Amino acid sequence: MNSLSFTETDATESAARAQDHVDDTRLQRAIADLAAFGARDDGGVSRQTLTAIDLEARRHLIEHARALGCEVGIDACANLFFRRAGLDDTLPPVLTGSHADTQPVGGKLDGAYGVMAGLEVIAALNDAGLRTRRAIEVVAWTNEEGSRFGPGCMGSSAFVEPARLTAFRTATDGDGVRFGDALDAALAAVPDVPQLPMARAMASCVELHIEQGPVLERANVPLGVVTGIQSVRWFRVTCMGQMAHAGTTPMDERADAMASAVALAQRLYAYAAAEAATQLRLTLGRWLVAPNSVNTIPGSVTFTIDARCVDEAVLDRFELALQTAIADVRGLRATRNDITVESLFRQAPTHFPADMRALVETGCTRALRQVGHDQPVRLTSGAFHDAMYLAGHCPTAMIFVPSRGGISHNAAEYTDAPALLLGAQALAYTVTALANG
Amino acid sequence: MNSLSFTETDATESAARAQDHVDDTRLQRAIADLAAFGARDDGGVSRQTLTAIDLEARRHLIEHARALGCEVGIDACANLFFRRAGLDDTLPPVLTGSHADTQPVGGKLDGAYGVMAGLEVIAALNDAGLRTRRAIEVVAWTNEEGSRFGPGCMGSSAFVEPARLTAFRTATDGDGVRFGDALDAALAAVPDVPQLPMARAMASCVELHIEQGPVLERANVPLGVVTGIQSVRWFRVTCMGQMAHAGTTPMDERADAMASAVALAQRLYAYAAAEAATQLRLTLGRWLVAPNSVNTIPGSVTFTIDARCVDEAVLDRFELALQTAIADVRGLRATRNDITVESLFRQAPTHFPADMRALVETGCTRALRQVGHDQPVRLTSGAFHDAMYLAGHCPTAMIFVPSRGGISHNAAEYTDAPALLLGAQALAYTVTALANG
Repeated sequence: MNSLSFTETDATESAARAQDHVDDTRLQRAIADLAAFGARDDGGVSRQTLTAIDLEARRHLIEHARALGCEVGIDACANLFFRRAGLDDTLPPVLTGSHADTQPVGGKLDGAYGVMAGLEVIAALNDAGLRTRRAIEVVAWTNEEGSRFGPGCMGSSAFVEPARLTAFRTATDGDGVRFGDALDAALAAVPDVPQLPMARAMASCVELHIEQGPVLERANVPLGVVTGIQSVRWFRVTCMGQMAHAGTTPMDERADAMASAVALAQRLYAYAAAEAATQLRLTLGRWLVAPNSVNTIPGSVTFTIDARCVDEAVLDRFELALQTAIADVRGLRATRNDITVESLFRQAPTHFPADMRALVETGCTRALRQVGHDQPVRLTSGAFHDAMYLAGHCPTAMIFVPSRGGISHNAAEYTDAPALLLGAQALAYTVTALANG
Repeated sequence: MNSLSFTETDATESAARAQDHVDDTRLQRAIADLAAFGARDDGGVSRQTLTAIDLEARRHLIEHARALGCEVGIDACANLFFRRAGLDDTLPPVLTGSHADTQPVGGKLDGAYGVMAGLEVIAALNDAGLRTRRAIEVVAWTNEEGSRFGPGCMGSSAFVEPARLTAFRTATDGDGVRFGDALDAALAAVPDVPQLPMARAMASCVELHIEQGPVLERANVPLGVVTGIQSVRWFRVTCMGQMAHAGTTPMDERADAMASAVALAQRLYAYAAAEAATQLRLTLGRWLVAPNSVNTIPGSVTFTIDARCVDEAVLDRFELALQTAIADVRGLRATRNDITVESLFRQAPTHFPADMRALVETGCTRALRQVGHDQPVRLTSGAFHDAMYLAGHCPTAMIFVPSRGGISHNAAEYTDAPALLLGAQALAYTVTALANG
């Protein structure tokens, strides 16, 4: 923490007091209240971005924040900011929060937890009678999920790079609604909320989120310090063959696109198994077979590759291995089948700064020790988060709480109340310390 | 031919005369006239069974056959029979023909060629002034393709086993139309055509068809004697895993259904390659992946197996190998993934009788030698045909002509006119010889 500029003793003391004022019952109620917007009979939540129910949820958040004494603002991408004033409001604020939209069928916590825990931090500071040097802002980013309008993280990525918004506005949903029109309607629905500029300076950003993976549950530790976000590369492989009758075509006359695809996929899985030590993650998730008929030899097979690792060099090696495997399979088939690969998407890894990670670790450790745990787990995030974009804008960190069974994007998404409390406590400590820096 | 009961010298002489009266121009025109019903701009034909255009085509066939002096009859499955009387009409007739329905996008020849060549045989006999001992009937079977209503070969299979018709009548097409209702409408549309009983005795049956595969073209021989129809077994394999986030789930925590499916498919392709000498044909044609998303580990993968061979023992061994491969893959995955296999369909092989094959070979050889070829190719059929069902009812044989590029069920389906003429000549010889037996 030495590199942070706050007065250590005061800051530590205030941070500890803020942490100790986090209220379990109030947090649980706040999460439940937001989950009522789009609640499903199966316990899940359906609240896709900028839908009517999302606009109702936004109104609820505005009222909730105002009741805590916050000023509310909105920017051109309909990101909502709930601001607790600081002692010196000329200084850039500390940002926390997450997103309030869900997948078509999501849970109560993905995104919503980070927003409501941020507002709980403000409630705890109020209860503790603490003022901070900098303002604290809790954000609810627009369209993190990317399920109704693609891509995801529109709100946070447009905030840090406003030029993106022009292209985002032309995105359409499954019913042909333009994102730009949905955005204008969302802005028009809150005429009482003043507009804020994009890309405002922020002192720092901390996002609290459920892990959405099995690592913390497996480690039986309820808090994780996120060291960074994995790099990801997406590819589409197309194997072309010759569609033909399964009965009439001798094996040695075939150009079977599925035989090529299976031979290639088998090599990729074997490569990933051999690279286990590097933490390479490989998923061949989406397959399209034509004509996809029992008695027709596949004429074309397309499959996607999702390759992730926090170490980009591992992904560079994987790309070379992919080219080698394709050449190898082409050789097998005596060049009868053509195989092509396209790059669909690539995202460089995010590495959160050491001083931010150390501060989060202090806040997590203090919370954990009160319930008999020693220290948080350090882990990378396999999923994208709004914090990935903020990391290019200001010093950023993330805190994870466990996901039962690693399950998310599902009504069965669940984190127990003690872990949710610990996450909010760690966040209160970190945000308060940063706001006094 | 010694085992056939016709008087050899007379029969051979008549058969040769019938063969020599087959007329190329008339055959080509007859094929083109039928292809006008459902003709497509791309040169293909869309004439699915019992559609309005199929009913128009049936009316055309009835008029065409009557113009040749045939009596026309129809049975309870709307199979149309065009009969040229014999000298002794108490004897069972000789049957030829095929089907006049097409795939949603088919060619001019699949089925239609066999029907029009059968009618050309009658025209040739008329021209030659020949009477035959037995009547000759040309049949147009209903719904061979099975594309509008499943299964295929409804007409021929119901003809030989009328009890099947009850279940067939309940089949529905994509618009919810029942086969039974379509059948009743087709029967009502031809009030001038007398009804014939199902399962009538037939002396023998010869079906002429395009190969729909590459063997004859590759051999550069325009006629093939079909020795039998391959046995086929269909299976559905289901690999169950656990759907999870591609980014957040470490490789050693995964139950990836696609990894199981690929490992299994790879073993099956390797088995088929090792069994090349047995002529085993293996197709993994239809794949369903759930949720089929780039960044989600597949939770389930289903794929079909189409395994064919004329030797059932090869398929018995394949089934054992399939079980071994499944056990092997289950072992790999430490039983985390469940793999199940269901049998969807199995059809025993058809072996055409030696005397029928020998007669077809004589007819083919005589036709071929007039154009400088030596003898026909002997081959098995990889596709099903109506003759497969007739083979259980009376001595049956099949003749193939080449398919350019092995292509069928496609507007690009093509056989050149000289080969089509040779096929009709071989058919004329065979049918005339049988009708005098």
